[in-house]
Amino acid sequence: MIIQSKSHPYSVESFDDLASALDASSLPERSHWLVDQVLLQHHAAAFRGRLPELRTVLIEATEERKSYEAIGPVFLDLLGKGLKRDGNLVVVGGGVVQDIGCFIATVLARGIGWELVPTTLLAQADSCIGSKSSINIGSFKNQIGTFYPPHRVLLCPATLRSLPWDEIRSGVGEIIKFQLLTGESEFRELMRDLASLSGQPQAIAKWIHRSLEIKKGYIEEDEFDRGRRNLLNYGHTFGHAYESATHYGIPHGIAVVLGMLTATYVSIQMSMTDHAHFDDVRTQLLPWCEPYGDLLAKVDLDEVVLAMRRDKKNTVDGVNCILTRGFGKMEKRRVDIDRVVAPSLQAFIKRELH
Amino acid sequence: MIIQSKSHPYSVESFDDLASALDASSLPERSHWLVDQVLLQHHAAAFRGRLPELRTVLIEATEERKSYEAIGPVFLDLLGKGLKRDGNLVVVGGGVVQDIGCFIATVLARGIGWELVPTTLLAQADSCIGSKSSINIGSFKNQIGTFYPPHRVLLCPATLRSLPWDEIRSGVGEIIKFQLLTGESEFRELMRDLASLSGQPQAIAKWIHRSLEIKKGYIEEDEFDRGRRNLLNYGHTFGHAYESATHYGIPHGIAVVLGMLTATYVSIQMSMTDHAHFDDVRTQLLPWCEPYGDLLAKVDLDEVVLAMRRDKKNTVDGVNCILTRGFGKMEKRRVDIDRVVAPSLQAFIKRELH
Repeated sequence: MIIQSKSHPYSVESFDDLASALDASSLPERSHWLVDQVLLQHHAAAFRGRLPELRTVLIEATEERKSYEAIGPVFLDLLGKGLKRDGNLVVVGGGVVQDIGCFIATVLARGIGWELVPTTLLAQADSCIGSKSSINIGSFKNQIGTFYPPHRVLLCPATLRSLPWDEIRSGVGEIIKFQLLTGESEFRELMRDLASLSGQPQAIAKWIHRSLEIKKGYIEEDEFDRGRRNLLNYGHTFGHAYESATHYGIPHGIAVVLGMLTATYVSIQMSMTDHAHFDDVRTQLLPWCEPYGDLLAKVDLDEVVLAMRRDKKNTVDGVNCILTRGFGKMEKRRVDIDRVVAPSLQAFIKRELH
Repeated sequence: MIIQSKSHPYSVESFDDLASALDASSLPERSHWLVDQVLLQHHAAAFRGRLPELRTVLIEATEERKSYEAIGPVFLDLLGKGLKRDGNLVVVGGGVVQDIGCFIATVLARGIGWELVPTTLLAQADSCIGSKSSINIGSFKNQIGTFYPPHRVLLCPATLRSLPWDEIRSGVGEIIKFQLLTGESEFRELMRDLASLSGQPQAIAKWIHRSLEIKKGYIEEDEFDRGRRNLLNYGHTFGHAYESATHYGIPHGIAVVLGMLTATYVSIQMSMTDHAHFDDVRTQLLPWCEPYGDLLAKVDLDEVVLAMRRDKKNTVDGVNCILTRGFGKMEKRRVDIDRVVAPSLQAFIKRELH
């Protein structure tokens, strides 16, 4: 698959195992490596002999490391190890490592070559294409970032075997989102396939590719997220607020599923869809949220509303969110927080999560 | 003047005085301001009543502030003062303030609107267009940066009146470079005009515009500096080494003039031009370097060569520099440092600076 971008076109290539993906990176004799240190432990055999010690930086994949302040020392480590404008940075890990690697690759010498080996389902099915990085600074979350895609994405669904089930489900949340955005038959086909997923997460490879095909259409048309690409935020305005109000106690993709259910519920209040559609979607999605639906049911509603008011996508006078008229019919709307959002949230959280 | 860019087209607009330029900024009711604190003192009357205290950040325009580490608190100050993705940052100052403002505007919310009021001759005649920012990190100089132009440049040559003469001459260095790149008659016309410049620096407005017109051609053709725009580095490989070896004791544009003389001298050794051309240019340029030519004559040659080896534009096996076949005929060449550059530098510095 080739993705067009304002910076440069880039490829997504698939590999059977991690070792093959690592071997396929360009410029092996002089690339620098940025690698998730936990992943290295889980896949020690695949990495053995493939990471040049003098050109490798290991990092901890946590929210705290994904900050402007914490990235400074990583820059210095890479520069001290000789990374230059004509270099190549191979980034191996999930979303956090990708964010850090993308940010560094964008601003080092105004943009160097980089290649991405995404190793979580979220990264493989969603974030690995689309150019974005998001970085925290101080107490401001994801306020800093860039648009700069890798030069190649080296995809290897076999790495999913080492992931905890919650992290698989988190990726599934975004995969569900892509199919809800596309249409009813695609959504139902996915939900049937997902029923047999447990125990063999690599069987999801087909849906990784279908997700990327869908996302490719959105990002090639609107790379800088000024129009149609906004629809990919379906479920995210509410999902982010749930993550924030639970202090990141809900995995991102699962929060997005809860957010999509919320958006469908709010769409009823906005006379855009009906309760039957909501019930249909709810029956299908709720099993993918357990036990986080119960966690959300206990959350302080004021915390959720406060988080929405703080969301960087919202302006002073309203909440921007993606609502729905049914499968494949999403629309961006501005919704009044006091009159619509707050009462809908209360009803949804109290009544619809059990 | 409208400049085309991959990010967005932007305008360069001229104003008679600083107050008019400040008044012309967009979104006065909600813009944030990033302002050189020394400039504010020098132009207190023009700024009076124009900077909203709750949305203004003052900075010190020094190399130390132009670092990744020092920019963190500036980000937090601006975010704490409410700067958001739909905001507008008005940046008022010279090259250092522009670098900081451009970097912040690029990576805040993946790119916000910003407007630039350049206040030094270097910034007005050269850096205000072309999209680049350059930021230091640790001991690595200018290794971090972005390509992201302002949305408008508000130009006001009247601000030049408060500049020290050395800073005027520093800007003149880049203006000379543009005319040397263009042709003999343009160069001679400029040098005649410059002879009557002293005491009325704003008379240089005509040459600011001609410099920007020339630069516009280069950057619109090659914004990301991969080809023809490289020629704008004429004098810079040697100039940077001189700045570094004198611990920034030579103002940038004056180091560039010395660098252009060096490049012309090296071009003789490369059989690209002759001594008569060098003597002609030397006679015209040397007066614009005093007393820094004398300073350079005392410098340790090894320091200069070491700085060239460290230059981020040079790769492991040679020095990339722009040489010349005469007025308007510059070419990028790779030159062997031990066999050509070092002996040429020695001869140039010892023999040609008096």
